[in-house]
Amino acid sequence: MADRDLPTFADVRRAADRIAPHARRTPVMTSASIDELAGCRVHFKGEHLQRAGAFKFRGATNAVLALDDATAARGVAAHSSGNHAAALALAARTRGVPCHVVMPRDAPRAKRAATEAYGATVVLCEPTLEARDARLAEVIARTGAVEIHPYDRPAVIAGQGTAALELLAAVPAIGAVVAPVSGGGLLAGTAIAAHGVDPVVTVYGAEPVAVDDAARSLAAGRRTSEGNTTSIADGLLAVLSDRTFAILRAHDVGIVTVTEDEIVDAMALLYGRLKQVVEPSGATALAGLLALARAGADLPDDVGVILSGGNVDLDRLPFCAARR
Amino acid sequence: MADRDLPTFADVRRAADRIAPHARRTPVMTSASIDELAGCRVHFKGEHLQRAGAFKFRGATNAVLALDDATAARGVAAHSSGNHAAALALAARTRGVPCHVVMPRDAPRAKRAATEAYGATVVLCEPTLEARDARLAEVIARTGAVEIHPYDRPAVIAGQGTAALELLAAVPAIGAVVAPVSGGGLLAGTAIAAHGVDPVVTVYGAEPVAVDDAARSLAAGRRTSEGNTTSIADGLLAVLSDRTFAILRAHDVGIVTVTEDEIVDAMALLYGRLKQVVEPSGATALAGLLALARAGADLPDDVGVILSGGNVDLDRLPFCAARR
Repeated sequence: MADRDLPTFADVRRAADRIAPHARRTPVMTSASIDELAGCRVHFKGEHLQRAGAFKFRGATNAVLALDDATAARGVAAHSSGNHAAALALAARTRGVPCHVVMPRDAPRAKRAATEAYGATVVLCEPTLEARDARLAEVIARTGAVEIHPYDRPAVIAGQGTAALELLAAVPAIGAVVAPVSGGGLLAGTAIAAHGVDPVVTVYGAEPVAVDDAARSLAAGRRTSEGNTTSIADGLLAVLSDRTFAILRAHDVGIVTVTEDEIVDAMALLYGRLKQVVEPSGATALAGLLALARAGADLPDDVGVILSGGNVDLDRLPFCAARR
Repeated sequence: MADRDLPTFADVRRAADRIAPHARRTPVMTSASIDELAGCRVHFKGEHLQRAGAFKFRGATNAVLALDDATAARGVAAHSSGNHAAALALAARTRGVPCHVVMPRDAPRAKRAATEAYGATVVLCEPTLEARDARLAEVIARTGAVEIHPYDRPAVIAGQGTAALELLAAVPAIGAVVAPVSGGGLLAGTAIAAHGVDPVVTVYGAEPVAVDDAARSLAAGRRTSEGNTTSIADGLLAVLSDRTFAILRAHDVGIVTVTEDEIVDAMALLYGRLKQVVEPSGATALAGLLALARAGADLPDDVGVILSGGNVDLDRLPFCAARR
């Protein structure tokens, strides 16, 4: 891969300027009782309060605004299990161009409803990566829309990095940042932003044990994918691309894996102590931090955790369902 | 009742200074989609993010800090279905004095657990006002503690008013404020604070239809109470005192009543759109505002809504339970 295909810290800063009129500068939140559990001061970047309910709006907006007028006019398209879908729909509406989104039939209802509410055309498909790719190719051939990949695109990665850029500007003392990892767009952008601000910040990715391709790929030194898997963290089922893998490797990003129970426990902490509605994927980073703390990792006094999204089907909250 | 028993705007300002080192200046939050539903800009004062999870910490802290040393040393006591209990426990711990709380057996577990975690002695009783009064009298006789009533005490009312004081300072354009009403401490304090800042602000109280003593009392021009009732808004079961009734009447406070379904719907909006974990009592004010909007009330462009608390049993969220 040519170096020009890998976004830089300058790209993250340009993205921050480009999306500033549209994206929310989300708050940073703390909880004394969570600090006690983690053994450090935890600074939560509230991307569940981002427009369209997730950090994805940053990357989608940066990518859509970066298109030249003729390309943008053809419309944009993507497949997504959820948050990128809604984010791209809102970004496209902001620029006034058509948006087509391929979603698996089992995508959370809240995410599908949001995507439609923002004016995108939703095309349903079977819940496999193969089916999603095939259906998206059909849509693009039919409409001429340009694909805005959820993570394997430099402008998307640079846009996602703006969340960490804001977090480190708000709390300069932060010595480590934890973000969830799926396709790696958020984590790669986070690493580029964090090391642009301060090269000695430690960057961790957190992922479900059930979808541990990032951990295995970085341990093996080469990208490995896997079959279709499942997790309560429905936003974390994608696998790294060559591009995101290369960035994570270059930035020496550590990966921590967490069980489904650990994700639910972290979610309950965020609801009960921080009083914030986050989706399971959004709670995975806190689960990862608590797992690191329990394992005796050498954590700094101040740790940033990116709460990536808050789009959850409220009648399926796991701490409710457990009692059924 | 002597005028000196009714707190003034000066008392609210003094309370603000007194509690400033201990209470959190909670954020004001907005949601474009809720604005659309309400037909006005809604500014939510996030008292669910207050210490001990509710506005009650303001009044309890002001009252405990206002005691002289000899009185405080004897300890403090109260009966409470929940949030005042935890708030008083934390306020007493802050001053280093004992705290005894009488709670009904059916109080939400989250509230009882918090009260115990803050170091108070919890005494359980039957869930009737009579049983609560009787048990509290026993505790006071045995310990010599001073009663800090949840709402019928000038220092408590003045403390509760500091939430509206902060809200109006943050958003001076606000032309109406909606707060939930139970015993009336928050609503009376809100009216005193709002009219101290701006005499033409309209103040509304919201209460469950099932516990509509405030609506009936103000309509009749004299205080009426009722038998034991129940509502999903477990924090709103108390009735006005002579003192809070007098204040609400003097400030020409309007009362809007809402159904149980309206409370649950408002709660789901706050979780789904604002991404905030609030308890049913905390959602009642939004339910009231939406009921006013539907009824064609003459609302100003900017309305403040006090989200009074966030202490909820997470495995009993009503939008989950509905599917069981």
